[in-house]
Amino acid sequence: MSISKKSVRSGPFQSIFASGVQVDGTLYLAGQVSMDGEGNVVGAGNLEQQLRQCFANIKDVLSEFGADMSNIVDECFFVTDVALILDNLETFCGVREEVYGGPPEVSQTLVQVAGLVSPDLLLEIKCVAKL
Amino acid sequence: MSISKKSVRSGPFQSIFASGVQVDGTLYLAGQVSMDGEGNVVGAGNLEQQLRQCFANIKDVLSEFGADMSNIVDECFFVTDVALILDNLETFCGVREEVYGGPPEVSQTLVQVAGLVSPDLLLEIKCVAKL
Amino acid sequence: MSISKKSVRSGPFQSIFASGVQVDGTLYLAGQVSMDGEGNVVGAGNLEQQLRQCFANIKDVLSEFGADMSNIVDECFFVTDVALILDNLETFCGVREEVYGGPPEVSQTLVQVAGLVSPDLLLEIKCVAKL
Repeated sequence: MSISKKSVRSGPFQSIFASGVQVDGTLYLAGQVSMDGEGNVVGAGNLEQQLRQCFANIKDVLSEFGADMSNIVDECFFVTDVALILDNLETFCGVREEVYGGPPEVSQTLVQVAGLVSPDLLLEIKCVAKL
Repeated sequence: MSISKKSVRSGPFQSIFASGVQVDGTLYLAGQVSMDGEGNVVGAGNLEQQLRQCFANIKDVLSEFGADMSNIVDECFFVTDVALILDNLETFCGVREEVYGGPPEVSQTLVQVAGLVSPDLLLEIKCVAKL
Repeated sequence: MSISKKSVRSGPFQSIFASGVQVDGTLYLAGQVSMDGEGNVVGAGNLEQQLRQCFANIKDVLSEFGADMSNIVDECFFVTDVALILDNLETFCGVREEVYGGPPEVSQTLVQVAGLVSPDLLLEIKCVAKL
């Protein structure tokens, strides 16, 4: 059963998986962490910097599909320390509102995981967008 | 690229994210935990009570979209103690069958996470529904 | 609001949930672990064997819907030891490329969880496919 996929490969893991795959009106984005294009962690230990880098990566992927943050419908946050998020909720919400340009019209799930691909990472964000 | 979203905000986290976002025939629900509308944990340490509260919250969100449990297609359980689920599998399955009104025609993923937004929570359930 | 679901039940958890549920062009697959049809863990402690068993299970589910690996658009890996994956990245990528028949055109998320349904399991893979 053949389908028509549009996909984009970018970032440090592009040999392993696509950063976004679109079929019809749905775009599945790979989980984004706070790494630059060479795989270096950005903002080790700094929640705000890592949030900004994750969302910058997400915006880069969206732009390849002619989309922006308003297309995101669902977020899944995998964090290494939920207390860090709760203790910095103003920062967490402030960065998101800034990135989305207002209160995000997005569903969210947030759980604490046991680890991410680098011990310096505080979060990974997996999004689904509609185009 | 503009899309038409329908979203609902409810519960203790309504200033941060939507509890459900629908585009076309897909409804993404926020992860639901066993909290009431004010953010108080319901049934601390009690699996059955927490399951019932999570599903009650999920049903509330579905009803805002004119939907019910039969619209759910996918469940993701993030639990803090997988052994607790296995040791109480009859309760786990019994509550689900009761809530769904029969054997759920739903795919499922279940993993043990390192924590949730409150240490009193035993599980978070993330669902996708089709309308 | 009534929808038309096609679902398949198979494997050791078939009394609890469906292994795949399709509505319109989207197929949600249950998280797959390295178990045979009777619920016995295959390849305890062996990453390559477990990867192969997970994907064999996934292919079995896809085939019930007339689909194959090329229909997968999104993968979510829940692993118990992210270092084991990184230390065996060649195996990890090699098995995936073999199973997909080339570089997978698939988005991916990979996080380390605190546990799976059996302590002998190294990973659970949750996929979404488009038909």
